[in-house]
Amino acid sequence: MASQKTVGVLLFEGFELLDVFGPLEAWGVHAQASGTCTIVMTAEAAGAVKSAQGPRAMADYALADCPPIDVLLVPGGIGTRREVNNTKLLEWLVRRAAAAEIVTSVCTGAALLARAALLDRHRATTNKLSFKWVTEQGSAVEWIKQARWVEDGKFATSSGVSAGIDMTLALIAKLAGVETAEQVAIRMEYEWHRDPQWDPFAKIHGLI
Amino acid sequence: MASQKTVGVLLFEGFELLDVFGPLEAWGVHAQASGTCTIVMTAEAAGAVKSAQGPRAMADYALADCPPIDVLLVPGGIGTRREVNNTKLLEWLVRRAAAAEIVTSVCTGAALLARAALLDRHRATTNKLSFKWVTEQGSAVEWIKQARWVEDGKFATSSGVSAGIDMTLALIAKLAGVETAEQVAIRMEYEWHRDPQWDPFAKIHGLI
Repeated sequence: MASQKTVGVLLFEGFELLDVFGPLEAWGVHAQASGTCTIVMTAEAAGAVKSAQGPRAMADYALADCPPIDVLLVPGGIGTRREVNNTKLLEWLVRRAAAAEIVTSVCTGAALLARAALLDRHRATTNKLSFKWVTEQGSAVEWIKQARWVEDGKFATSSGVSAGIDMTLALIAKLAGVETAEQVAIRMEYEWHRDPQWDPFAKIHGLI
Repeated sequence: MASQKTVGVLLFEGFELLDVFGPLEAWGVHAQASGTCTIVMTAEAAGAVKSAQGPRAMADYALADCPPIDVLLVPGGIGTRREVNNTKLLEWLVRRAAAAEIVTSVCTGAALLARAALLDRHRATTNKLSFKWVTEQGSAVEWIKQARWVEDGKFATSSGVSAGIDMTLALIAKLAGVETAEQVAIRMEYEWHRDPQWDPFAKIHGLI
């Protein structure tokens, strides 16, 4: 990662905890080691945002006040069922995705990117348990049933919850080299699934 | 999990993000499915607490105001280097550990339990990168070099960062049955390391 990057995370009520904090652990460990990235969290209003699991995280900025984002992270969680109808939020996503270098989603976060029409004519994946609902949010998307994550152009979409960690390590490898990503995984004592095709959950949920 | 449990998480400035939110994802998914547990987060003062990686989480209660805790979770992170000298916090840990049914730590969180003398004459493990520093915090602890997590009596201590997820799934299996824990792991699309002896990181860090 040659230049300074800002990783920007969208929060909304009912976000899935690990969709946010799995990737942020990896980006954060990379930031601590390299000094080359900064993390910001944003939501419709700055302040505490309740997760799907109950614990609350702090949005540093309201959407309009959020600094420029280089790597955008859109989590999933039960709150996406409401936010797919939030025009203000979808318009914000369209503007910020256009300006970002990399746009990522974890789990049902892909539903928000799909409803913002950002994934049209792109390959993408999502949570396997909620696959039917998410894929109905974007009929022009080429949805991939079996994948840990899918990269297509500036978009990287991951499968459910913990898959966001594997995708993030792959993005760190792309930006800063595979050895750097390996060091981040070791620091997290995490067994990195490096193969984007590894996905036993597609079968468990009867998608293949 | 027959009766209602409260999972209580200790936050302090410089806590490691995934040490907290990996286990809370698993407890939270279990709570959503079963309705048998509630999560609370506590810190010296209620309100926003900054993690080692930067993002902030909300403590619901100040330490003294926190409701009774059945399952206590003590995370690690760079902040433990300061908190091992925080007498007020260590005294709180002693009181709350005595009243809890299960006391858990992730990563360098074991240093806090050790300095509170809670792990004396118990088997325990911790982060492998910081193994030397943590183990110096408790000379009467039987520290295990190679383990994903260690259970001894009411104490369950895990290795670094992501290991907290595997330990939590094992605790859910113990409380609510292995099928329940498997369903939580599937919901998280997480490949659960069920073997507490699985630990490639002990070798990577030259401990064995």
